[in-house]
Parts: sequence; C-alpha cells; structure tokens
Amino acid sequence: MRKVTFGGANSLDNYIARKDGSYDWITWSKELNPIMKKYWKNIDTVVMGRKTYEVTAKGSTDVGVGPIKTYVCSRTLKKAPNKHVEVVADAVKLVKRLKSEPGKEICIMGGGLLAKSLFEAGLIDEIGFNVHPVLLGSGIPLFHKMKKQINLELLECRQFKNGCVMLTYRVT
Amino acid sequence: MRKVTFGGANSLDNYIARKDGSYDWITWSKELNPIMKKYWKNIDTVVMGRKTYEVTAKGSTDVGVGPIKTYVCSRTLKKAPNKHVEVVADAVKLVKRLKSEPGKEICIMGGGLLAKSLFEAGLIDEIGFNVHPVLLGSGIPLFHKMKKQINLELLECRQFKNGCVMLTYRVT
Repeated sequence: MRKVTFGGANSLDNYIARKDGSYDWITWSKELNPIMKKYWKNIDTVVMGRKTYEVTAKGSTDVGVGPIKTYVCSRTLKKAPNKHVEVVADAVKLVKRLKSEPGKEICIMGGGLLAKSLFEAGLIDEIGFNVHPVLLGSGIPLFHKMKKQINLELLECRQFKNGCVMLTYRVT
Repeated sequence: MRKVTFGGANSLDNYIARKDGSYDWITWSKELNPIMKKYWKNIDTVVMGRKTYEVTAKGSTDVGVGPIKTYVCSRTLKKAPNKHVEVVADAVKLVKRLKSEPGKEICIMGGGLLAKSLFEAGLIDEIGFNVHPVLLGSGIPLFHKMKKQINLELLECRQFKNGCVMLTYRVT
C-alpha cells in the first residue's frame, strides 16, 4: 500500500492560514531544503482541496505540470482548470483507490477539511508539520473537529534556527 | 516585573482536555521531574479559572495549601472554597497588580479562556507546552480565538521518550 502523508506549516494555535487564506507569516529556512528535496523524491501524487488549489494556482501557473499527478477534490468545480489536473468529487474514494494502486507516496496538501475526512476514514499514514513560533489568533484551522481520536507515534522532532519546530508522526 | 508563564499539556490538535474535562490521555514522563521541580522553585503564585480549579480540587484536597498563593478567577463563585484560595472577578486587573508587586514568578494554570484575556492584555511573558502525540478530535481548546497576533521566540524544544515534545517560547 502506498504511504499517504499530510503536512505543511502551521501556527502554534492550529492555523494553516489567516482568514483570507494568506500565509505571509510562514518563513522558509535553508535547513528545510534537503528535507523537502528528500520528501518530494518519494512523492508522485498530490491530492488537494479546491481552496488550496486556488491559492496554489495563484502563486504558480504550473500546478499539476510535471511528473507529479495532481488531484483537486471539489464538489463545485465542474471541470479541470488545466489538462494536468484531475477534478474528483469524493476524496475518500479517490485516496482508497490510489492507495491500492502501484506507485510512490501520496501527499495530501493544505486542506484541513480534506484531511479530516481522510483521517476519519483511516487513510492517512504519516503527518508532518513545521510549527511556526506565532499565535495567529484566528484563521483557517489545520486540525478540524473529528468523530474519533487519532493516536500518533512521534518519528522526529527537529528545531530550526528560525524558531520553527518540525514534528513528524506516524498514525498508529 | 514578575514573569508570568502559561503552560501545561496539550494534544497536537490544540486541546487541553476532553469535552468533559478529562485528561486520561496525558502521560507523565520521568524526564519531566527535574524540569518541573526547577519550574516550581521559581513560582510563588498560581492563577487559574474556576473550571480548572474545580478539576484540580477534585484530584487534591490541598489546592492552595502551602507556600504558593492561589487565585481563582470567577464571576460566579461568591466566596473562596477554602481559606487558602482567593476568588477574584477580574483576571486582567489581578495579574496587572501582581506583576507590579514584589515576588517570584506567576503561573497561569489551565484555562484557555483565562489565557486569552491575559494574552490580549499583553500580560503573558512565557508559554510552555508538553505536546502529546495524539489528535483528540474534540475537547476544550488550549488557544482560543484572539483579537491580535502574538509573536513568539522559541526558547527550547525537548523531545521525550514517550513521544511528547516540550516547546517553550518567549512572547515578543
């Protein structure tokens, strides 16, 4: 079975973005370069929600272009915005199918609501977050309320010079 | 000015307790003993909300007894439950006054709502949390929505054998 990982950057008070979707508070660290390079080497599929897609597409015209297959989960988007992206209505069904197919690892990007449905369906294997040293006070939550408790096993904890802490867990 | 710290244990999804106030998911680690011993040496005052007081008092009959002065912030409690505890209605006014008085450090215990008002009033100097490897899915939040952003500086990050990570920050 292919490994499904959910990750990104978050604030200490559990937000992935400000209310308007902005992420000016996220800082990049050179120390992340080798970690992310290694991570992306193992990924051949990205699954994201519609809102994450829209924010990502704003910043880059080549979302979905290249060797990584991109799925956008949406019940409102009628067709793919470009030929490199596939729109899918049912995220749980999609990820179940992808996991059973041959391939490399699958990255769940952004979307706390997308992750919530995948957590509840038991489809996420690992999570990794770069916890930023800030309390945003409000915004778009990373972890939403869920019907069940998810137990984790800490795999790694890395402290960066910019005050971020990267926490990686296996879902048990 | 006396240092005010807010700390405790939390789940990765920002809860300090289950909906019913229970904290069976919190694990103690021997590695915490010297850290907490050193921490409590510098504290002579504890400020908590009414709900935290009720949970704490259930587990121990000597809350407020001993060399540490305990304040319970409540608008509904009419009088102190015992002579060792003082009931105060306005937490912000109390902590402002305490900070200006001579003494050791002040510990804000439990109470995400209590902490929210103190954060907004700029009265918290340091925070420290022992992040547990679990997504509870629901419960009583640690960090509540706030009117303003609080910037932090990472002071320390310690990984324990039980999978907990202790994060300590200075409010900047």
